[in-house]
Amino acid sequence: MTAAPPLSGDVDLDADRLREECGVFGIFGHPHAAAIVALGLHALQHRGQEAAGIVAYDGQRFHSERRQGLVGDHFSSASVIDRLPGSAAVGHVRYSTTGETALRNVQPLFAELEAGGLAVAHNGNLTNGLTLRRELIRGGAICQSTTDTEVVLLLAARSRRSKIVDRFVEALAEIEGAYALVALTNKKLIGARDPLGIRPLVLGELDGCPILASETCALDIIGAKFIRDVENGEVVVIDADGVKSFFPLPRQPARPCIFEYIYFARPDSIVHGRSVYDSRKAMGAELAREAPAEADVVVPVPDSGVPAAIGYARECGLPFELGIIRNHYVGRTFIQPTQSIRELGVRMKHSPNRAVVAGKRVVLLDDSIVRGTTSVKIVQMMREAGAREVHFRISSPPIAYPDFYGIDTPERDKLLAARMDLEAMRTFMGADSLAFLSISGIYRAMGFAQRDPRQPQFTDHCFTGDYPTRLLDHDGERSAQRLPLLAEAG
Amino acid sequence: MTAAPPLSGDVDLDADRLREECGVFGIFGHPHAAAIVALGLHALQHRGQEAAGIVAYDGQRFHSERRQGLVGDHFSSASVIDRLPGSAAVGHVRYSTTGETALRNVQPLFAELEAGGLAVAHNGNLTNGLTLRRELIRGGAICQSTTDTEVVLLLAARSRRSKIVDRFVEALAEIEGAYALVALTNKKLIGARDPLGIRPLVLGELDGCPILASETCALDIIGAKFIRDVENGEVVVIDADGVKSFFPLPRQPARPCIFEYIYFARPDSIVHGRSVYDSRKAMGAELAREAPAEADVVVPVPDSGVPAAIGYARECGLPFELGIIRNHYVGRTFIQPTQSIRELGVRMKHSPNRAVVAGKRVVLLDDSIVRGTTSVKIVQMMREAGAREVHFRISSPPIAYPDFYGIDTPERDKLLAARMDLEAMRTFMGADSLAFLSISGIYRAMGFAQRDPRQPQFTDHCFTGDYPTRLLDHDGERSAQRLPLLAEAG
Amino acid sequence: MTAAPPLSGDVDLDADRLREECGVFGIFGHPHAAAIVALGLHALQHRGQEAAGIVAYDGQRFHSERRQGLVGDHFSSASVIDRLPGSAAVGHVRYSTTGETALRNVQPLFAELEAGGLAVAHNGNLTNGLTLRRELIRGGAICQSTTDTEVVLLLAARSRRSKIVDRFVEALAEIEGAYALVALTNKKLIGARDPLGIRPLVLGELDGCPILASETCALDIIGAKFIRDVENGEVVVIDADGVKSFFPLPRQPARPCIFEYIYFARPDSIVHGRSVYDSRKAMGAELAREAPAEADVVVPVPDSGVPAAIGYARECGLPFELGIIRNHYVGRTFIQPTQSIRELGVRMKHSPNRAVVAGKRVVLLDDSIVRGTTSVKIVQMMREAGAREVHFRISSPPIAYPDFYGIDTPERDKLLAARMDLEAMRTFMGADSLAFLSISGIYRAMGFAQRDPRQPQFTDHCFTGDYPTRLLDHDGERSAQRLPLLAEAG
Amino acid sequence: MTAAPPLSGDVDLDADRLREECGVFGIFGHPHAAAIVALGLHALQHRGQEAAGIVAYDGQRFHSERRQGLVGDHFSSASVIDRLPGSAAVGHVRYSTTGETALRNVQPLFAELEAGGLAVAHNGNLTNGLTLRRELIRGGAICQSTTDTEVVLLLAARSRRSKIVDRFVEALAEIEGAYALVALTNKKLIGARDPLGIRPLVLGELDGCPILASETCALDIIGAKFIRDVENGEVVVIDADGVKSFFPLPRQPARPCIFEYIYFARPDSIVHGRSVYDSRKAMGAELAREAPAEADVVVPVPDSGVPAAIGYARECGLPFELGIIRNHYVGRTFIQPTQSIRELGVRMKHSPNRAVVAGKRVVLLDDSIVRGTTSVKIVQMMREAGAREVHFRISSPPIAYPDFYGIDTPERDKLLAARMDLEAMRTFMGADSLAFLSISGIYRAMGFAQRDPRQPQFTDHCFTGDYPTRLLDHDGERSAQRLPLLAEAG
Repeated sequence: MTAAPPLSGDVDLDADRLREECGVFGIFGHPHAAAIVALGLHALQHRGQEAAGIVAYDGQRFHSERRQGLVGDHFSSASVIDRLPGSAAVGHVRYSTTGETALRNVQPLFAELEAGGLAVAHNGNLTNGLTLRRELIRGGAICQSTTDTEVVLLLAARSRRSKIVDRFVEALAEIEGAYALVALTNKKLIGARDPLGIRPLVLGELDGCPILASETCALDIIGAKFIRDVENGEVVVIDADGVKSFFPLPRQPARPCIFEYIYFARPDSIVHGRSVYDSRKAMGAELAREAPAEADVVVPVPDSGVPAAIGYARECGLPFELGIIRNHYVGRTFIQPTQSIRELGVRMKHSPNRAVVAGKRVVLLDDSIVRGTTSVKIVQMMREAGAREVHFRISSPPIAYPDFYGIDTPERDKLLAARMDLEAMRTFMGADSLAFLSISGIYRAMGFAQRDPRQPQFTDHCFTGDYPTRLLDHDGERSAQRLPLLAEAG
Repeated sequence: MTAAPPLSGDVDLDADRLREECGVFGIFGHPHAAAIVALGLHALQHRGQEAAGIVAYDGQRFHSERRQGLVGDHFSSASVIDRLPGSAAVGHVRYSTTGETALRNVQPLFAELEAGGLAVAHNGNLTNGLTLRRELIRGGAICQSTTDTEVVLLLAARSRRSKIVDRFVEALAEIEGAYALVALTNKKLIGARDPLGIRPLVLGELDGCPILASETCALDIIGAKFIRDVENGEVVVIDADGVKSFFPLPRQPARPCIFEYIYFARPDSIVHGRSVYDSRKAMGAELAREAPAEADVVVPVPDSGVPAAIGYARECGLPFELGIIRNHYVGRTFIQPTQSIRELGVRMKHSPNRAVVAGKRVVLLDDSIVRGTTSVKIVQMMREAGAREVHFRISSPPIAYPDFYGIDTPERDKLLAARMDLEAMRTFMGADSLAFLSISGIYRAMGFAQRDPRQPQFTDHCFTGDYPTRLLDHDGERSAQRLPLLAEAG
Repeated sequence: MTAAPPLSGDVDLDADRLREECGVFGIFGHPHAAAIVALGLHALQHRGQEAAGIVAYDGQRFHSERRQGLVGDHFSSASVIDRLPGSAAVGHVRYSTTGETALRNVQPLFAELEAGGLAVAHNGNLTNGLTLRRELIRGGAICQSTTDTEVVLLLAARSRRSKIVDRFVEALAEIEGAYALVALTNKKLIGARDPLGIRPLVLGELDGCPILASETCALDIIGAKFIRDVENGEVVVIDADGVKSFFPLPRQPARPCIFEYIYFARPDSIVHGRSVYDSRKAMGAELAREAPAEADVVVPVPDSGVPAAIGYARECGLPFELGIIRNHYVGRTFIQPTQSIRELGVRMKHSPNRAVVAGKRVVLLDDSIVRGTTSVKIVQMMREAGAREVHFRISSPPIAYPDFYGIDTPERDKLLAARMDLEAMRTFMGADSLAFLSISGIYRAMGFAQRDPRQPQFTDHCFTGDYPTRLLDHDGERSAQRLPLLAEAG
Repeated sequence: MTAAPPLSGDVDLDADRLREECGVFGIFGHPHAAAIVALGLHALQHRGQEAAGIVAYDGQRFHSERRQGLVGDHFSSASVIDRLPGSAAVGHVRYSTTGETALRNVQPLFAELEAGGLAVAHNGNLTNGLTLRRELIRGGAICQSTTDTEVVLLLAARSRRSKIVDRFVEALAEIEGAYALVALTNKKLIGARDPLGIRPLVLGELDGCPILASETCALDIIGAKFIRDVENGEVVVIDADGVKSFFPLPRQPARPCIFEYIYFARPDSIVHGRSVYDSRKAMGAELAREAPAEADVVVPVPDSGVPAAIGYARECGLPFELGIIRNHYVGRTFIQPTQSIRELGVRMKHSPNRAVVAGKRVVLLDDSIVRGTTSVKIVQMMREAGAREVHFRISSPPIAYPDFYGIDTPERDKLLAARMDLEAMRTFMGADSLAFLSISGIYRAMGFAQRDPRQPQFTDHCFTGDYPTRLLDHDGERSAQRLPLLAEAG
């Protein structure tokens, strides 16, 4: 779930979040393409902190730099950017999963096809990736990575079409699942979203140069103009002649992932025309109507719980207070303390603000609960800081089903809401009361009268179990899924 | 003012803050002394990010590790902590000043005196340090560092007393200015505050082991108990027999630095019995009473402006909103972009939250203004995000005088409030209105009816020009101040 | 020719050597397989200093570690070796060519084939590698590296045979040129030499575990027993049942590369039953018979010229003296000096031993001359040290033709002996006399009456232009050779 | 004796050598002073590999760069040299002793005295350093390092003289033992040798700029001219007016250290008018006369044994052969192997050349034996390689007494020759015969009829126990010697 387990006793409020696997960015026709991609990726850093990569094309050669670590750690120096010349470039940030974190898996992936070079960056997850991969290996293919994204390259390589764009579209016709893809050839920048539009992708413009990015915040960082969302099922092909739009696959109603609003997207991004910040405040306000509390203060779990807490507090008329303080200098690891130090209950990342909490009835507001491991600790932290009562409020419904579309969820039996009912969860957490926003509530907060059960407006299976596509890899052959892949920590 | 100038066009809201030079921490008698000091320094990281050091004593030898960089970068591994055995240890974090950032200046400093080893960590600045240093060199002394702190060691070495504690106290009798000192000998842990108590120091306890720390947040991180503030002019001597208190210098009324409440201390710290968070909210509320605004939203300049903005908003009855979003993944440097990229007005660290700001009359709340360079940019950022009006409110008085007690202030002619009157500042910033909290207001917010001009309750010369001590180095011989010191980037 | 040009004026005696591209090593069945491979690669470090890699198989998974730099820099710590568990492992050292030195080119290469994993390490060069590569890409293959070695993996992947060994042999049937290959599957360790046996490969044994290595010195380092040379055209398949030998390709007479004896192999290695050290002494002695000199001392160009100089001196009855001293602490780069320092004629790597040279008639003995650039300098260095006469003797024939079998030779027009006749070379070098060993002489030194022109006993085209195979890539389509490959400095 | 113990079973022929602690270099008046010092230190790298430092003076400020590691690792880049502007500079290389290898001990040491800055680099060891240090601390001094060299700075600081040179000479009057000092003030470059001239120092010149260096090889690397040796007891003061010579201390006959000829100095250096290479050959020849052997080949222990072996072989009429091959790519550490690998008897640094050794009666020639630990292994290595007989010859007398003048010798009871007689040593080593050069023999080899017992021509106490000075620190108070110094691995 998280890169490293939190110290026992420590309260790492980020340890029980869902993780998305990626952010993508591309620009065409700009003299400082790679520098702009680096800045765009920096703005998308919240979507993936494991690794980052950029591929640029200078009219003659493709240049690639891929590194483990943050964008700013590796792509902030002129020397690296100078190794990425050219006016077209694509980039990628990747979330840190455990295990196969080898450099060869860092995107954009690149291949020399017969028709020319092709670089691909992918946000999302294919539900038939392993199935296709096995079929391709059976046909004589060699894989350079262990990512599902590589099948897009291999399918394009196998295609008999002469133009790379056609090969790319042929590849899209075979893949299933969630994808926001940004690809670069020696002539074109291509963007593509899956038929349901599960993962986001927007089109922008800077000085007349088209941009593709996962979120609008990556446009804002460089002062680029937002043009429009790339639509579900759309393929956007950008070259010297401008931007062309295609819908090569059968069209379906859009069904974007609700979690972009709840947790993933940055609060200042606008996703499908809605402010993420406003959406979160609306969820908090809706929750206040559904589950008010007799309390003295509303305390957000920082930082993602803040907007919902503002919404909740305002709707309830309770004061909003920073009852938990985040230490801004936290690195990924710290002293591996001895048992005796571990038992101190060290507060590396967050500490309670006693002045706010002591003697108070506290509404604690978080955006979601996954395994509940940190929820226990945060309630305990509030009590130790003197809270008289702790009323836990979650501004989204209980997560009871795993994801297969690019969100890193634990196995189902690790999900708190799959294991316990509400009262058991409350007892487990040690809270005086506990409430989640309802399914209807979250749809209301998003501006709908209610969820349309035949054609839901959002991808929401984590709450409902209603998966938007078939799950070929998962259902087909569970036992055969683990390929004997090469372990490399290069 | 800050280590590196912000990118032109970028809005680095931290670029125009005051910096304090240090934090100190010490513990006596704990089997994991160095690990606990490392944790304590981590909690004090906001007081200094340039370098950190720990000296431990294992009953036979002193062990020292000093590094440039964050505590977590160097003191988070067992291997470093293992090189610091012993049950008594002191540590230090240091702010990044330009120039002489050599390792030899990283504290704690250490010297082998005739009476035994002495390690010293210092928060503050001596106003007669250069004067003493010159005198000592004239007497045959050799300096290992270019810090004022070293004169404490040299004075103790020169003393004819046989006990180190006595030598240390003799040294205190000669120094002037601001200091919170933590020192370690082969028998004792010593804490000392200057006669006015300008810089903070608290006494705590963990498992019966006494602790000295700059702020209570360093006690909270390890679950230690707060005992009391070390008093102004007090010397605390800790050894196996417990904690003894001395007042070897003539006693004076306390006059702590008001900036600990305004900006330096962490909001969850309790300084001299007052919550820093509550003090900031009270300053915001007082400002709302002094300078209300006809507006739609109150937007804090993150992160230090948040408590004051909550106080202001509540007092005014206006909604508090996160109108500026901080990027959590910002490192110290990023691409040195070409001129054309620089002109884009890149938003590396902060971006406006358009959904909150567009079309609104915004009260922008910050805690202080130094040179005003970022204030211009942030007003401009609000306007670009669509703010209809921008009313700038500062929850402390104008800074018009430099500091000589450990706060890194620019020369007087760089201070905005020393150069302009209020209306000129408003015009410079491009705000629709501008107001600072008054001197009386800040004393009211701190719980006093008013400032006592004959004996001010706080060190507040940055606002008033009323320095609490003589300034020997500064006044005596301005031209002779620059020593021909060795430049070393070891 | 060399990774970085020597400082103007400096005398880097290693700057004008030929470079071989690789060394290989594999072991099967040993509990410390990876540690032993690391030691073996260390002993083969003279065959390649750019990069090193090891792939191990632990019965379930393949593990790979590939690094740029020396073996000792990366594979000397327990932590790296611990990431390579298993009882079978193969490794590779690679010479530093300019340009495409990306990590993805570091061997062993690995691929997941339908039949299982396959790791391949290669010493040599394929003469139809580019031709095959283009054909494979045309068929839909994606390349992970820019090495010719990868075609072996791709051909094995494309094969319809079910067993990996059979696929591997099918791949061998398609490749041409020079290769000593060591491959690892999940069941077997495989060794293969090209039909002419151009590059060396030996079979050894440690504690009953079979070993494959480029040279016997890699057996000696671990106290392993030498069993026999792998024969030209032989495929050796090692598994739990022991060592099996196959000759799947039409058999031809062996024709090993003469340069292994002249320069590449370590002097303590035994190649095809002959001591390399003795061969070099014999070449020196033969040269003394062919081209004696009226002189006072014989001075070797260190270190590779030493054995030939011993042979020459003894045959002539002249004293052998160390007239040039090597600085053992030379790294790859040093100060980029200003022009004025460059003109000093800095002696970073070697310096003359005046006591030996001054006033003497010196025979200077080197093993080979490529471009002659350092020969000029060394003669000049001898003269500056006071040599009365300098008689240059080269213990191998003039190099007049480039290599295509894994030796990094410059373009033909850079080779001194392709540009000048003997007298012109002598004048160019500024020597009083100059002589090379004759073709007949080197065959005599190797124990043959003479070179058999119809079926030469050695691969010797660098001297004769008589290439042992067709040169498909080189002859076929010179203009089309440069693939638009991805540049990556990963 | 050596920084890290050799792997058990490994034959590290350098593991049983004596180590000298330093080399020094200085230049005055050259526009590229620091670059030239870096080159000079590189040529002196054999005198110390632990650390290196340079201090330069640019007319206004002193600049210092001190680093752990090789000169080429840290002082080879323009960026470091650019931080050392100025036309006068001094530098130092330091041998790696265990323990106190902190950066603060890396020389040149520097202090700001009342009269100006003073940088000092020291080769040698003071025999009253600890005594002086204790006295200075008692007087109120603080030490920045744990080196004896610092007392020179402290004594100069304490001096009441107004000129730095006078203070420096006053300091010399108090110190005892061995020293070749190079010092830099803001006006002058100073060189000084102890009254006996134990450690070497030469005067050279480049482009009219005076140079001081430990050995002539440091002049040769930059093409500088050798002027003369600095004499024993001489102080050389160099400034814009040229070179002045002083003899401030009572004059004594010179008595240089014989070990410079046996092992320390580079073979191409000329020490006191004698070629080191020729001296070693003469020692080998003298040994051949004293202790010839019935044998087939003479094999040097590389690399320092080579000249003596050439001398021995020539005198005996036996062939000189490289029977032991050195691996040029050895780093400082390698795999910490498991016990089972350790038992293999890994040959990381050297391997036997079987072709030379097998079936032969071998004369093995080494320059010295300290503890004998590697001698055992090398004899065993020769036998394993098939040697029929091994006759060990040592081209210097048995080392039976420790050094206190800058050579790192083990405690007396670790010295082989202090523990055993000749026959016991032979048995211990497993050699068929063993012989050392006699005391008379080494004096003959150095051109003297015999050793003058009343006034020996060389410092030779390691063989004779006849120490050239009193040993104040050592004799005075053995028990009090260990200062409770600070351990720092900065």
